[in-house]
Amino acid sequence: MTARIDLDNLPALSLGCTVFAGGGGGDPRIGELMAMVAIRALGPVDVRPIDAFDDDDLVMPCGMIGAPTVMVEKIPNGAEGRVIRESYERHFGRPVAAVMPFEMGGINGVLPVAWAAYADLPLLDGDFMGRAFPELQMLTPHLYGMPGSPAVITDERLQTIVFTTRDNVWLEKLVRNSVAALGGSACGGLYPMTVGQARRPAIPGTVTRAIRMGEAILRSTDDPLAAIAEVAPLLRLGQGKVIDIERRTAGGFVRGSALVEGLGEDKGRLFRLEFQNENLVVIEDGEPLATVPDIITLLDIHTGHGIVTEMIRYGQRVEIVAFPAPEVWTSAEGLLAVGPRAFGYDFDFVPVADRVSGGARA
Amino acid sequence: MTARIDLDNLPALSLGCTVFAGGGGGDPRIGELMAMVAIRALGPVDVRPIDAFDDDDLVMPCGMIGAPTVMVEKIPNGAEGRVIRESYERHFGRPVAAVMPFEMGGINGVLPVAWAAYADLPLLDGDFMGRAFPELQMLTPHLYGMPGSPAVITDERLQTIVFTTRDNVWLEKLVRNSVAALGGSACGGLYPMTVGQARRPAIPGTVTRAIRMGEAILRSTDDPLAAIAEVAPLLRLGQGKVIDIERRTAGGFVRGSALVEGLGEDKGRLFRLEFQNENLVVIEDGEPLATVPDIITLLDIHTGHGIVTEMIRYGQRVEIVAFPAPEVWTSAEGLLAVGPRAFGYDFDFVPVADRVSGGARA
Repeated sequence: MTARIDLDNLPALSLGCTVFAGGGGGDPRIGELMAMVAIRALGPVDVRPIDAFDDDDLVMPCGMIGAPTVMVEKIPNGAEGRVIRESYERHFGRPVAAVMPFEMGGINGVLPVAWAAYADLPLLDGDFMGRAFPELQMLTPHLYGMPGSPAVITDERLQTIVFTTRDNVWLEKLVRNSVAALGGSACGGLYPMTVGQARRPAIPGTVTRAIRMGEAILRSTDDPLAAIAEVAPLLRLGQGKVIDIERRTAGGFVRGSALVEGLGEDKGRLFRLEFQNENLVVIEDGEPLATVPDIITLLDIHTGHGIVTEMIRYGQRVEIVAFPAPEVWTSAEGLLAVGPRAFGYDFDFVPVADRVSGGARA
Repeated sequence: MTARIDLDNLPALSLGCTVFAGGGGGDPRIGELMAMVAIRALGPVDVRPIDAFDDDDLVMPCGMIGAPTVMVEKIPNGAEGRVIRESYERHFGRPVAAVMPFEMGGINGVLPVAWAAYADLPLLDGDFMGRAFPELQMLTPHLYGMPGSPAVITDERLQTIVFTTRDNVWLEKLVRNSVAALGGSACGGLYPMTVGQARRPAIPGTVTRAIRMGEAILRSTDDPLAAIAEVAPLLRLGQGKVIDIERRTAGGFVRGSALVEGLGEDKGRLFRLEFQNENLVVIEDGEPLATVPDIITLLDIHTGHGIVTEMIRYGQRVEIVAFPAPEVWTSAEGLLAVGPRAFGYDFDFVPVADRVSGGARA
């Protein structure tokens, strides 16, 4: 079942990516504009399920790496996808057959569409996170012992750095360090592999799901949350107003926190949201209400649009929601890589569905 | 005229490298031991003049990059030369024909001998500095507009990072940054090129000159300075005792200074030596007495052995000498790259021979 990304549904894809980003992946607006230019010039991009490819086909998982606060000001050149592709084709001695977003959230859900259009290649309908995460060992292939190397990064000057490391934690350290030296963000390819190798780690259908999500929000007239819940079950954690936001950009990440004061039926409650590129935890009364790997998203209360961490502003009216984590992340190995303790918190993951009494209110 | 490096003359090469290092390049002792092991296992290494190679032969200029203070404690694996070579052979699609020290000073004059032995390749008799310098745009090919890319670095875990940058200043910035992330030192290949391309930038004969220098010092019984002056004209700046030494290792460099109090006929004089890996300037009474690119070396007053910057100790009796810079560095372009202003000093280069009245005292 091949879908297509064209000028009509690109805004829906972009919007869907703000919902599944968990606050990260970078604001998709620039990626959407780049994909728009590419599609206008070269036509729509086919989105194919993994089963539509041959086992031997070479997949290029790609996206931006770095601090979202930087990405919105340090605009890509447009040719980064070509440079990454050429680097992999030289390395593997054969052509790339499919472009794939390594994370399906924020700008990284739409920028690969531009690169696929320029390369006249299909986009694989899936990703390696089922959301967005900040570090390079936080991709599903890592759980199966697959190497992120060779990883390629390139900047808007089209300089390239190719890393072959001992393990994926070293890869994260060395790539992050170079991304910081390149100004805080860069484009990159990670975990190159064949379709046969990608079958196990790939989380299927996440591209078309983001399109469906965006379309549902755009269609909804009065209750965007209900429209969102129809596409993906969600849990409402509370609604309120952003009364404080603190962010710092350093070492290739943006870290910070926001305070949300309850409004309406949540009046009197106070939520603290903490993030490292992506939203990590929501804390209420000193206790975690929701944590990674569940997907914590701030939604604009009026439009239902997801608010990525670098776009959180004082005074925004938000609904704090969570989507249950992709199943792969709630295994013991998954939690070791992306559970709260992987981010330095001294508590274990408890699924948000078990914590929020009454379950989904939407 | 092919020479050979074997177990007999390897110590002389190592010693010669301490004299021409200008204080930098790292203590050669570890490189000497690694070359000894390699030669013992695989036999002597041929040292061939550049004219003995074909124009199309691929040259691999290589050595260690980083802070000499780190290099003496973070021991190479031994296989770094192979990893760099394989990386270049994959990139260029043909075998490396010659190993070449990119700088002929310190450990970098001897480590490539080990790598040549392991690869069963000859060593090219020449280098791209005619001494040692701390930064990657301070190699002669840079003066001719030749790229240092693709540059390869590898650490003792044999992780590789391959850089292709817009220019050599970016290369220095990005490689240095990664070297720091790898712990402060790494092995690398830079400015790969053919013999035909290397003819202009290569400073010929520097390997065999270092061997001759070491042999002369080892032969001398009572006056090592006279023996040194016979191999290479030198200027004596003064002799004295090290009364203060300050070093800090940061960002992949060691920076610092030493104070030398005059003794004997130099009693009452005070010399301040400043270094960034290599010795940069000698200052007396607030005025520069000698500066880069002239080769400033501290010699042990009793043995004539060169003292690299990380080995300077309180109480050492030293002779401060200078060798005139290789001619290529005293051109306008050369001074732009490696003159005092390139290191942040607010004065111009004046050849040490013009500053030290009476010229050579040796």
